[in-house]
Amino acid sequence: MEIDLSKIKTPADIKNFNFDQLNLLSEELRAVLIRKLAAHGGHVGPNLGVVEATVALHYVFDAPKDKIVFDVSHQSYVHKMLTGRIEAFLNPADYDKVTGFTCPGESEYDLFEVGHTSTSISLATGLAKARDLQGGKENVVAFIGDASLGGGMALEGLNYAPELNSNFIVILNDNQMSIAENHGELYTHLKELRDSNGTAPNNIFKALGYEYIYVKEGNDIRSLIKAFEEAKGQDRAVLIHINTMKGEGLPCAESDKETFHFHGPFDPKNGASLVVDPAESYDDIFVKTMRESMRKDPKVVLVNAGTPGAIGFTPAERAEAGKQFVDVGIAEQDAVTMTAGLAKGGVHPVMGVVSTFFQRAYDQMSHDVAINNLPASFVVFYGSVFGMNDVTHLGFFDIAMLSNIPNITMLAPASAEEYKAMLELAANNTVGPLVVRTPGGKVEHQSEPVNTNFDEYEMVEPGEEVAIIAEGPFLPFARKAAALAREEGLNPMVVNPRILSKVDEKFLDSLKDFRMVVTVEDGIIDGGFGQKVSTYMNRYGVKTINLGIKKEFVDRYDVKEFLKANSLTPEQIAEVVVKG
Amino acid sequence: MEIDLSKIKTPADIKNFNFDQLNLLSEELRAVLIRKLAAHGGHVGPNLGVVEATVALHYVFDAPKDKIVFDVSHQSYVHKMLTGRIEAFLNPADYDKVTGFTCPGESEYDLFEVGHTSTSISLATGLAKARDLQGGKENVVAFIGDASLGGGMALEGLNYAPELNSNFIVILNDNQMSIAENHGELYTHLKELRDSNGTAPNNIFKALGYEYIYVKEGNDIRSLIKAFEEAKGQDRAVLIHINTMKGEGLPCAESDKETFHFHGPFDPKNGASLVVDPAESYDDIFVKTMRESMRKDPKVVLVNAGTPGAIGFTPAERAEAGKQFVDVGIAEQDAVTMTAGLAKGGVHPVMGVVSTFFQRAYDQMSHDVAINNLPASFVVFYGSVFGMNDVTHLGFFDIAMLSNIPNITMLAPASAEEYKAMLELAANNTVGPLVVRTPGGKVEHQSEPVNTNFDEYEMVEPGEEVAIIAEGPFLPFARKAAALAREEGLNPMVVNPRILSKVDEKFLDSLKDFRMVVTVEDGIIDGGFGQKVSTYMNRYGVKTINLGIKKEFVDRYDVKEFLKANSLTPEQIAEVVVKG
Repeated sequence: MEIDLSKIKTPADIKNFNFDQLNLLSEELRAVLIRKLAAHGGHVGPNLGVVEATVALHYVFDAPKDKIVFDVSHQSYVHKMLTGRIEAFLNPADYDKVTGFTCPGESEYDLFEVGHTSTSISLATGLAKARDLQGGKENVVAFIGDASLGGGMALEGLNYAPELNSNFIVILNDNQMSIAENHGELYTHLKELRDSNGTAPNNIFKALGYEYIYVKEGNDIRSLIKAFEEAKGQDRAVLIHINTMKGEGLPCAESDKETFHFHGPFDPKNGASLVVDPAESYDDIFVKTMRESMRKDPKVVLVNAGTPGAIGFTPAERAEAGKQFVDVGIAEQDAVTMTAGLAKGGVHPVMGVVSTFFQRAYDQMSHDVAINNLPASFVVFYGSVFGMNDVTHLGFFDIAMLSNIPNITMLAPASAEEYKAMLELAANNTVGPLVVRTPGGKVEHQSEPVNTNFDEYEMVEPGEEVAIIAEGPFLPFARKAAALAREEGLNPMVVNPRILSKVDEKFLDSLKDFRMVVTVEDGIIDGGFGQKVSTYMNRYGVKTINLGIKKEFVDRYDVKEFLKANSLTPEQIAEVVVKG
Repeated sequence: MEIDLSKIKTPADIKNFNFDQLNLLSEELRAVLIRKLAAHGGHVGPNLGVVEATVALHYVFDAPKDKIVFDVSHQSYVHKMLTGRIEAFLNPADYDKVTGFTCPGESEYDLFEVGHTSTSISLATGLAKARDLQGGKENVVAFIGDASLGGGMALEGLNYAPELNSNFIVILNDNQMSIAENHGELYTHLKELRDSNGTAPNNIFKALGYEYIYVKEGNDIRSLIKAFEEAKGQDRAVLIHINTMKGEGLPCAESDKETFHFHGPFDPKNGASLVVDPAESYDDIFVKTMRESMRKDPKVVLVNAGTPGAIGFTPAERAEAGKQFVDVGIAEQDAVTMTAGLAKGGVHPVMGVVSTFFQRAYDQMSHDVAINNLPASFVVFYGSVFGMNDVTHLGFFDIAMLSNIPNITMLAPASAEEYKAMLELAANNTVGPLVVRTPGGKVEHQSEPVNTNFDEYEMVEPGEEVAIIAEGPFLPFARKAAALAREEGLNPMVVNPRILSKVDEKFLDSLKDFRMVVTVEDGIIDGGFGQKVSTYMNRYGVKTINLGIKKEFVDRYDVKEFLKANSLTPEQIAEVVVKG
C-alpha cells in the first residue's frame, strides 16, 4: 500500500482515509519532510513533532471554513502539504515556492502571516468574536506550543477567551521544549499534568474555565482524532493538551532538540551540518567578550528571552555562566523589565535580544528602563539588512523603534574592535540605558585604536564639500563610494557616526559650509539617525540626503537586489555624492 | 488617644505601635487622605482600599532595606505618608510636592517611576536576582492589584519568579475591580478563591509553584500582619491574596468604584464633582459617532483594554453597545491582536486606546496588524502635549512609534468635523491599518467641507515663500503665526497635513521653489512627520525647519511653559517663519 501524496490537493482528499491510511500518510509525509529539511534547512523539530497532529486536525476539522491559527506558524509545513502545496515539498525545484510560515498570499487555508510567538490565541479570539457577531457556527482553533504559551500575550488571550462563551479550541502542543529548554513554573505544572495523565490537582486550565482534555500519545493519530472530535462543535472553551515528541522520527532531531529546532542543510543519517561556519563572526566576539566580563566580574549577568542560541551561547557556555546567565523563556517584556530591576539592584545586566523580537518590549524599554534612566544594557542581534529576511523577522526597524525613546543611547559599531569596546561598556555600564547593535554582514577590522567616547563621530577619511556619514556595515560601502567619487574628481569625507540616538553637534557644526551631507544607515530612513542629521543640518541650509531602507515590508529578499532597490550599493552612494 | 501624623518620618516610627494604635493610625491616615483627595483629586479608590495593607507592609517589612515595588504605583499615597512625606498630605500648600506615583527622586523608599500596569513582578525578579548574586538577605515584595495581574507581562513574571528559588513575595491586592469591571476568567477564579476562603480547587498560584496565603479581611490590620509575617524571610515564592474593598471608608467611592478610581476635586459628603466639564469635547464626538456607527452596522465592534472611561464610554453606553463592545481587561497586546483577528473575520473593529498604554502593543501593531495589512482601526486618546503630563503617561511619542511602521496610515484631524469624518472611515475601514489621533486641547471647528481623501494635504491659507505645515491642535497656532508674520510683511501659506505616516508628494512638489517649509507637530521631532517632510524637501534643497517637542522625559509640566520651552507658541512659530 502506498499513498500518492501528489494527489492530495485539499484536506477533503484525506477525509475518507481509515486509520491505517492516516498512519501511512503520516509516515510518507514525515519521510518527504525529512528529505526536504535535510536538503533545504528549516524548522526541523517543530514540524516533525506535529505530523500526526496536523493530519488529525485536517481530518477532523473542516478548514478553511473552520479556522485554524498556528502560533509562530513555523510548524505549519505539514499543514501546507495537506492544503494544496505538496509540490513545494516533493519537488526540490519547488522547495522555495512556499515560505516557512503561514502565508495568506499562498493559500486561503493560511489565515495570517505569523512568525513571532504567542499570538494565536488572541488572533483566534478575534475570529471567534467575528463569527459570533455574524451568527456563524464554524470552529475556531488556536494551535500553540508549550513555549509560546509562556509569552504574556498568549496568557492574556488564554485568560480572555473563555469569556466569549462560545466555541473556542486551544490545542496545546507540549513537546517539552522551547527553542532551548523551557523556563518558568508553568513547565513544572505541565510536567505534573503529563506525569499524572492529565489528572494533577491545581489544573491551571480548569482554573481559567477551560474544559481540559489530555492526550498522552500526541503522535498517535487515533488518540488525537478522538480528542479533536470531542472538542469540535462545543459551545465553550476547550483546551486539548497533547504530549508530542519534538523531532519525532529523526534520531538526530530527537536527541539534540535545541540544535535541530531550526537547522540549515544537514546529513539526515547523522545530523552533520552541511553549512560551513564563517571563520569569524560577531556572535563569537559577543560570546567571548561576555564570558570574559562574567569571569572578571560576578555582578555581570546576561539575560535573554528564550533565544540563547541566537545570541551565540551553547548549553555548555550557559552552564559555565551558571547563575550569571538568565533565560526567562519567550517573555521579552519580562526579560527587559527584569533587566531594569537588575540594574536598580546594583548588578550589571546585559540582555541579548533579536531585533525583531525586541519589538515585544517597546513599552518596557520606554517605561521601565528609559524613564528610570537605569544602567541596563541591551545587545541587539540580527538588527540589519544582512540579517533574517522573512517578512515577520526583518531586522531593520529597531533604530526607528528605539533611538527615538529619550535617555536611550544607541550605538552601532563598524568593526570588531569597536563592537568589543562597546560590549565592554555594556558590561560595565556607566551611561544609562544602552543599546548596542551587533553588525550584520562580514566582520570588519580597524587598525586605529577605538575612540571610546562614543558620543563622538569619527572622521574615517578626510575630505571636503560632501560628507558621507555611514553607520555599521555601511561604513565600508561609504569608503568604496568615496573612492569612486574620487575618480570623478570629488573628495568626500567619510564619517563613522557610531551613535544613532543623537547627533554629534560639534562635528556637524564643522560641516556647516559643506555643500552636502549624505547619511547611510542599516535601517529604514523614516525615524532613523539620518533624519536627525537632516533636522540638525537644516539650520545651516546644508542639503542632507538620507539613504537607507524604504519603509515597507518585504519577504525573503535577495540582499544584493534589495540593496540596489534601496540605492544602497557603493556605486549608487557614489552617484548621490557626485550628482545629488 | 490621637496620633500626631506629622511626627511620622519613617516606618520605624510605627514599629512599636500596638494593634489599637495601628488601627487608629489607619483611621487618621484615611481621614487625611480623603481630605486631600476631595480637595485635590487623585486616585481615590485604589488608595483608600490599601490603607491597612500599607500600614501592615511597613510594620512588618524593613524598607528601604526590604524592597517593595508597587504595581502602577497609583496606590502608593499611604506609602508616601509613612515614608517621610506626610506634609504633602497634611498641608494643602504642599499637596503638589509629591507626584501621584512612586518617584525615586522623592525618596529612597520609592524604587522606580511607575505608571503603567503589570510591571511590578518583573521589576521585583530583577531586584531578587541582584540580591541573590550579591548574597543579600532582604525581602523583595511585589504589591499588585487584581486588574494588573491580568496583564501579560505580570503573568510572565508570575511564571518566572518561583524559578529564582529564593525569597519572593507577591501581595495580590484583590479589590475585585479594574478601573472598570474586570474581564477574563482569572477573575472568576479569584472569586472562587474568595468564596472558598482560599480553598478552591485548581489554585492557579499553587499550580505555578507559589505558597499561597489567603487573607479574607484585607482591610484588617491584624490579619494582614499575620500573613505578611508568615511570608517574611521565606526562601521561596509566596503569594498573599488579600481581599480588600476599593474606596474603603468613603461611601461614594465604595458605591461607585469606577467613577472614583481616579477623580478630580469632589464633595466628600456626596461625591458630587467640583470639576466643570467643557461644553464640548472630542471624547463626546467619539462616543456619539461610534454609537451611531454601531447602531447602523452590527458589524462595527469597539475594542478596548481596560480603559472604557478614558475613551468616553459610560457603563450605560457600554450596556447599550452590548456585544459590539469588547473590553479584554488591561491587556493591550491581546486587544490589538484580537482586533487584527476581528478584521480578518470580516467585521469592522475599532480599538480605542490611550497613547501611553498603546506602547504595550508595538509589536502587535507591527507583526499582527501591519504585516497582515488588515483593515483594523485604532483611535488614540491623550496622544497630545495637551493630554496627561505625568512622566509615565506622556502622550507625545505615538507619532514616532507608529508612523514608522509600514502599512499603517496615521491621521491627525484638526477639527471636530475632520475627526468625525476620520472616525466614520475607521468604522468602515477601506484603507488597511488605520490610526486616528484624537486631538488634544479645545475643540476646533471648520466651516469648509471635509476633504475625505486624507492622503492629501489641505491648504488652509494660501501664501508664498514660506509654508507652515501644522498638524492637529497646532493648526490654529500656525494660523496665528501666519497672521503675525503678515504684520511683518510676509505671507506664509498654512497647510493642514492630516496624514502623518507619509508625505503628500504632489503637494510638497508644489513647494519646491519656496524659500522654506516649517513643520509643526504635536509630538517629538525625532521620528515625527516633520522629518519625513525634511527628507523629501531636501531633494529640492528647500530648507525645512522641524518644530515639535524635544525628545526627553518631563514630569508634570505646565503646558504653557512647556510649549514655550519647545518654541511652539504662535509667536515663536512666527519668529521662525520671519527669521528662520
